[in-house]
Amino acid sequence: MAIDAPTDLSARIEAALERALPPAETEPVTLHGAMRYAVLGGGKRMRPRLVHATGQTLGLALEQLDAPATAVELIHAYSLIHDDLPAMDDDALRRGQPTVHIAYDEAIAILAGDALQSLAFEVLAGDESAAAQPAICNARTLTLAKACGSRGMVGGQVLDMASEGKAIDQAALERLHQHKTGALLRACVRMAADTDPLLDADRRDALDRFAENIGLAFQVRDDVLDIESDTQTLGKTQGADIAHDKATYPALLGLDAARDYAMRLHDDALAALAVFASDADPLRAIAAEIVKRDH
Amino acid sequence: MAIDAPTDLSARIEAALERALPPAETEPVTLHGAMRYAVLGGGKRMRPRLVHATGQTLGLALEQLDAPATAVELIHAYSLIHDDLPAMDDDALRRGQPTVHIAYDEAIAILAGDALQSLAFEVLAGDESAAAQPAICNARTLTLAKACGSRGMVGGQVLDMASEGKAIDQAALERLHQHKTGALLRACVRMAADTDPLLDADRRDALDRFAENIGLAFQVRDDVLDIESDTQTLGKTQGADIAHDKATYPALLGLDAARDYAMRLHDDALAALAVFASDADPLRAIAAEIVKRDH
Repeated sequence: MAIDAPTDLSARIEAALERALPPAETEPVTLHGAMRYAVLGGGKRMRPRLVHATGQTLGLALEQLDAPATAVELIHAYSLIHDDLPAMDDDALRRGQPTVHIAYDEAIAILAGDALQSLAFEVLAGDESAAAQPAICNARTLTLAKACGSRGMVGGQVLDMASEGKAIDQAALERLHQHKTGALLRACVRMAADTDPLLDADRRDALDRFAENIGLAFQVRDDVLDIESDTQTLGKTQGADIAHDKATYPALLGLDAARDYAMRLHDDALAALAVFASDADPLRAIAAEIVKRDH
Repeated sequence: MAIDAPTDLSARIEAALERALPPAETEPVTLHGAMRYAVLGGGKRMRPRLVHATGQTLGLALEQLDAPATAVELIHAYSLIHDDLPAMDDDALRRGQPTVHIAYDEAIAILAGDALQSLAFEVLAGDESAAAQPAICNARTLTLAKACGSRGMVGGQVLDMASEGKAIDQAALERLHQHKTGALLRACVRMAADTDPLLDADRRDALDRFAENIGLAFQVRDDVLDIESDTQTLGKTQGADIAHDKATYPALLGLDAARDYAMRLHDDALAALAVFASDADPLRAIAAEIVKRDH
């Protein structure tokens, strides 16, 4: 299918995000400008692609997955805006551009993040492709809400800040990442699984295992990139982890061992996909990209 | 029914909020402590009571309304935390207590607000009393998400900040409040309406009209109270509107005319309830309280 090619899928995701966001000329224009700036300013779209790729693995139509793919990227964008705030990581650069509180101001940055979170749930609940199946919509809302709340992503950000300047062991670092980035990545896969009412428990568990391992691999790779890449390629401030005195896998394990660990997690993720045979190729492609990426 | 008495209903709401919030000892404890501090620190619970009272008007069981009543109060609590932040209204006092960013810190205040918003949607989607009716859950999620987003409550906060120090006319002030506080108050009534699949369009419209008018009356009364009450009774900093050079109804209309306007809006709200006869008495009681309250 032509639509499976990465560029077509990327275009599909950009179009869905554009559709979901209020037009720039809708009042209040500053707020909507900031929301659009944050979401449409590029990004790898790893999370929406993970939603779509899981759907393809399960033989679902891409139309059924546009809403959760959009919603998760809106949540991701909101979390980046808030993480970059002066009271948090105080970062001025994101995707090679000024962060939202620099390009606008702090109040608008807080509010744009707040509104993007609401919009994510509006998109999930308003999904016309699932109007005939409200149970699917509702299940996906529950999955996403849990993943981004205090026992998921937001909790992870608190653990992350609390760990700055402290010596934490690998188990604590793992727990931090399972919350901060892992919960949302798992939700991508789970929302696609929620969309398939015929999915059996074994396959659902296999997808969960894939998501768990690839989520951690993603984070280990991120830590490695913070050291080996440069600010221009990365699109955000290089060396920020060290500057913030954050616990990282290279700091804990050494750079080479951290690289090896990312590969081992990648292998474990692939092993979980065996049950889907070649149907899971779209997920394998994303997994390969995660461990090879340079930004 | 004994459960209809205000004190029982209040106890019911407090219990539902307590149930919804993660226990204080759940990690990260600072985050959960801040969430609980913000939500359980008192408050009139006007919004949850509006949900329950609308449900009573429609003859629905209170059990069916606990989830939306809880969710809307969680959204309200999150919005207060963020509104009080230094980058926004920079307020140190709320309900007679230090605001969350004073009691904790700014980062925790931002994140506690973020997590309370997620939790609101988790509560709506996870409502067991409506598990057999996912269409109801989904409709309420859509109602709440729209009400608190950029074209609702958050948009209103932006309009509010943009109006500081500027001369705005009554139409602009009305639009500001219809977004900032009105959207969420309307959502209270609408989520209860969403819970009744048999509700006809006329009655739904009548409830909307009631909510619209009582929401505005609430705000006009709030503006009047900011002038005539004192900080101790109010539980927040008295005269904050004047200090922030905010447009208010007393400033636009004069204090007496603002009081009259609140009463007229109250009368219009009551007129909309005529179709429900005595079934709407719980809503009438809340309406009376709104125009008479001193804090």
